[in-house]
Amino acid sequence: MAHHEVKLDVYNYLFSPNLKPCVTVNIGDTVTLHTDDAFESRITSEDTSPKAAVRNAKFLNPQAGPVYINGAEPGDTLVVHFESIEFTRDWAVSCIMEYFGGLQSNSITKTLQKPLDEKVYMWKTKDNGKTWRCEKIGVTIPANAFCGTMATAPDTESIQALTPGPFGGNMDCPDVCPGNKIYLPVHNPGALFYVGDCHAAQGQGELCGVALEVSAKITVSFDVIKNKAIKWPRIESKERIMSVGSAKPMEDAARIAYADLIEWMVRDYGYDSYDAYQLLTQVGGLYVANMVDTTYSLCASIDKKYLERT
Amino acid sequence: MAHHEVKLDVYNYLFSPNLKPCVTVNIGDTVTLHTDDAFESRITSEDTSPKAAVRNAKFLNPQAGPVYINGAEPGDTLVVHFESIEFTRDWAVSCIMEYFGGLQSNSITKTLQKPLDEKVYMWKTKDNGKTWRCEKIGVTIPANAFCGTMATAPDTESIQALTPGPFGGNMDCPDVCPGNKIYLPVHNPGALFYVGDCHAAQGQGELCGVALEVSAKITVSFDVIKNKAIKWPRIESKERIMSVGSAKPMEDAARIAYADLIEWMVRDYGYDSYDAYQLLTQVGGLYVANMVDTTYSLCASIDKKYLERT
Amino acid sequence: MAHHEVKLDVYNYLFSPNLKPCVTVNIGDTVTLHTDDAFESRITSEDTSPKAAVRNAKFLNPQAGPVYINGAEPGDTLVVHFESIEFTRDWAVSCIMEYFGGLQSNSITKTLQKPLDEKVYMWKTKDNGKTWRCEKIGVTIPANAFCGTMATAPDTESIQALTPGPFGGNMDCPDVCPGNKIYLPVHNPGALFYVGDCHAAQGQGELCGVALEVSAKITVSFDVIKNKAIKWPRIESKERIMSVGSAKPMEDAARIAYADLIEWMVRDYGYDSYDAYQLLTQVGGLYVANMVDTTYSLCASIDKKYLERT
Amino acid sequence: MAHHEVKLDVYNYLFSPNLKPCVTVNIGDTVTLHTDDAFESRITSEDTSPKAAVRNAKFLNPQAGPVYINGAEPGDTLVVHFESIEFTRDWAVSCIMEYFGGLQSNSITKTLQKPLDEKVYMWKTKDNGKTWRCEKIGVTIPANAFCGTMATAPDTESIQALTPGPFGGNMDCPDVCPGNKIYLPVHNPGALFYVGDCHAAQGQGELCGVALEVSAKITVSFDVIKNKAIKWPRIESKERIMSVGSAKPMEDAARIAYADLIEWMVRDYGYDSYDAYQLLTQVGGLYVANMVDTTYSLCASIDKKYLERT
Repeated sequence: MAHHEVKLDVYNYLFSPNLKPCVTVNIGDTVTLHTDDAFESRITSEDTSPKAAVRNAKFLNPQAGPVYINGAEPGDTLVVHFESIEFTRDWAVSCIMEYFGGLQSNSITKTLQKPLDEKVYMWKTKDNGKTWRCEKIGVTIPANAFCGTMATAPDTESIQALTPGPFGGNMDCPDVCPGNKIYLPVHNPGALFYVGDCHAAQGQGELCGVALEVSAKITVSFDVIKNKAIKWPRIESKERIMSVGSAKPMEDAARIAYADLIEWMVRDYGYDSYDAYQLLTQVGGLYVANMVDTTYSLCASIDKKYLERT
Repeated sequence: MAHHEVKLDVYNYLFSPNLKPCVTVNIGDTVTLHTDDAFESRITSEDTSPKAAVRNAKFLNPQAGPVYINGAEPGDTLVVHFESIEFTRDWAVSCIMEYFGGLQSNSITKTLQKPLDEKVYMWKTKDNGKTWRCEKIGVTIPANAFCGTMATAPDTESIQALTPGPFGGNMDCPDVCPGNKIYLPVHNPGALFYVGDCHAAQGQGELCGVALEVSAKITVSFDVIKNKAIKWPRIESKERIMSVGSAKPMEDAARIAYADLIEWMVRDYGYDSYDAYQLLTQVGGLYVANMVDTTYSLCASIDKKYLERT
Repeated sequence: MAHHEVKLDVYNYLFSPNLKPCVTVNIGDTVTLHTDDAFESRITSEDTSPKAAVRNAKFLNPQAGPVYINGAEPGDTLVVHFESIEFTRDWAVSCIMEYFGGLQSNSITKTLQKPLDEKVYMWKTKDNGKTWRCEKIGVTIPANAFCGTMATAPDTESIQALTPGPFGGNMDCPDVCPGNKIYLPVHNPGALFYVGDCHAAQGQGELCGVALEVSAKITVSFDVIKNKAIKWPRIESKERIMSVGSAKPMEDAARIAYADLIEWMVRDYGYDSYDAYQLLTQVGGLYVANMVDTTYSLCASIDKKYLERT
Repeated sequence: MAHHEVKLDVYNYLFSPNLKPCVTVNIGDTVTLHTDDAFESRITSEDTSPKAAVRNAKFLNPQAGPVYINGAEPGDTLVVHFESIEFTRDWAVSCIMEYFGGLQSNSITKTLQKPLDEKVYMWKTKDNGKTWRCEKIGVTIPANAFCGTMATAPDTESIQALTPGPFGGNMDCPDVCPGNKIYLPVHNPGALFYVGDCHAAQGQGELCGVALEVSAKITVSFDVIKNKAIKWPRIESKERIMSVGSAKPMEDAARIAYADLIEWMVRDYGYDSYDAYQLLTQVGGLYVANMVDTTYSLCASIDKKYLERT
């Protein structure tokens, strides 16, 4: 069981089957990946203009990886044991950007209106990341650290790192957090695992489109479930199993998430599909992870205690 | 402070400004309204065909009311103190219906496919409604009692009781529950309050479209906030304030819910709208109440502890 | 075969089963109904502020009717022979309004952005309505006169006249025009026919939300198809049959329109449903009637020459 | 002015900046590209099961290209002069596939229902492609030949050929046809042009998802507009200019298409944006090109005669 530590000189901006692995690991090894924030640390103060800061950035949302996991083959499922997040600085940044976010028109939901004004919010921690304070607003909030982005490489496509999808990606789902297992489909030898976009905190929906963006060290280890394919990302916490659907319109993300959870209950827990459909109607959870990215991500879940029937 | 008890011989099926009040109450009075389940108790066993059962029902989702609240005038806000739900039977019913529900095409999201098979699920309680068991599945779940439907009369329209909207209505939002305050816009003298569709339990999204439908006695009392209009239903629990948006596609319901919550934070808690937008990005909650009705309902929320700035 | 002429003192603003008929007619009678424009002639110059003009209007989109058609009963289909439109003035008005229109956020697709500036466009005719000129833009366009709104009363609901739906209503569909037959479902004795919102011209989608709004005299006559119910509005021109679906998101309107057209081909033209589905794939028409109202309306069509098989 | 003819041994299935050009051409050269149908000729009779036929196909929708156009640089606009389509066989195929098409649930708009039955429709021509007959239905229709797919390579992503987007792609837009000019954004040196998916005919929306799929020879030539970037595909016919937006939900495709057309009118025809918005409201065209692909494509247009003001 080796430990690997990876700090890239140049990040990647695509989820792609064609990028060269930055490290090769065995099942059970731990890997610590250094990640930068979604702006690659270009926004450093409340005086920064986000538009100006990213003008010369061809890409946003830098990704560490790909990690090549020995033994992972197409048709398997990759299990990511998310061990820990360690923030590597004492500030996080959020901002209102032009033509971006849940309550603003954008290049797709297009209007002729002027954009919102830009505004940067700096959040600082004095307790090693346990709580974060925004002086401008006058609030202190607890950390809720997770990775906005986690993916395996798609089958053949190379997709920009701002996109969520069947491969995982930019789901901005707070349950992609330390302590949980994340299941991702394997489409390529070695799975080709990507991670980035650490958030010190984020609410459901990531309303303005920018969480508490922070640089961090992410530690994970991997398992592989052989010859068992999944179609969409799944998450398991101590108490719940969850499926994440990403699509537009948002109701399609909801349909995907719940339908995948039914499939999980049928295949792994012996449920009849109608019974699973019925039970999720009465005890299922369904929250919005992101309402701001290129597709919306919804997380459907059920408490594990209902998976045993009596 | 009087107490009123109302048991209608004939329920209503519209949220309408034109229906005759069944009772007139003063602010502070308590009212207990008997409600029937959404099928008006037409489905009584697992052998019942839902389609056959409702064939001769011109309408579904019977409503108690309207209650006329003295002192409520257009432009006010009605505050409903939801005191209690008392189930009036020991069984609840859910079912898979043809061309209805979150994972089935319907008359609007229309396909040429055959419908799902009908299937009735009976849920029973032996502890006065604290827990409910479905023998067919083999699970027991705790009660999570609330009213799927609560409304004031719209301004001029008469809307069928299956619809959620700015007036409240069939939101199927589990936070419309005892212990919480529900705020509704007042468009007519007396507000004209409707309630029905009691659910012994329901998950987020009400996936198959039918929760644990049960008959019950609903006890509420009212306050009126004079000369203060709201546009969408709001909810206040001990710990959170919430706004419920209902629209299609689902992202519009999300936009409405969060935008209304911002408006609330600005008007009542002195927030700058950008700061509220930022803060909800980091700590807001957003879950799907219903993904099955004529419009979808999403509930956005924030913990009250963040409303005080320091 | 009598002729009736109706000029209301007070218009209606709801499609409702509860309003008193303004005239009762027999099948084959002609009726001329005077209609006012959607703003009830409140915007009369390019200096008018639309917002100020409608501030004291509780309602928009005044409707003539309801017309009671003797012999029409629930379960029948009403056939409207749209005889003619005669403009009753030489100017039409359009405008950009705040928070309304296809390229602006609104109360449902809600953003925090400022609205577009208001701007009124006057269009004038010097040839009795054959062509219309907007001096401000410097263009002259041909008339394309039709009624934005045509409906029968819904079953039990009373719906504001700005809404399109299964009952017809505010479809803003340019094929609801003289020379065509419009088929509407009958839910009430006498059908209770409403009409209004005459447009001198309008493109597909009614992009900014306001066509060339004009007052007019509308002449129609009626037939009734006994014991034959339809679910959505249908249109027949000399060359095509068409179905109009109204829903959100827009793809649902498309699904409804094409599915209804298939149903029509199956029931009236002996098509197998798969064959109709296949044929519409290759020769069907599908345009956007409105992308601005409370639901979107899409018009699906097929050339009549394909209805005969050889 | 050279002529090139290209017949690939192996087609491509991605719109990618990374694929090796199959031919390099100069501005003004003509190129004839052989294309296969979307199923790569795997479905050859009404007895073929589409599902079985494509089971071993890793990809669908084979593309000819990329063509490298000398002189095209990022930031330019590529002008495709679409000279001709010549069918290379006398039959075309369409079919109903499982979980695909406008009136069926699919992997995104997910339901628990069974799929439609598979059904293959063969269409044959006896007049060199002028008309096509489906004996199974008993109809003959005129040809309406166009390319379902035409694209330049995206900036950095590699996108599967079934997808429409800003780069063009699988728009299934009948106006991408001989006689018209298609404008595409250039993101890479040489533009990297792809074409495929020839349709002998198709209605608006491509309802069941499969048009009259046929193999063909496509002849095009190219121009480049230097230093003028466009964001979405545009089309110019003798009479109209058009913009094609592709997105979900469908209303976003409509917004994109009309907003891009306004931008075109402003930049190239001196329109004020409000005036363009107003004029398109009155004379704009908006039809559905596809309602079946991974995003929906809508085509907005205006008659060129309105571009000159007087």
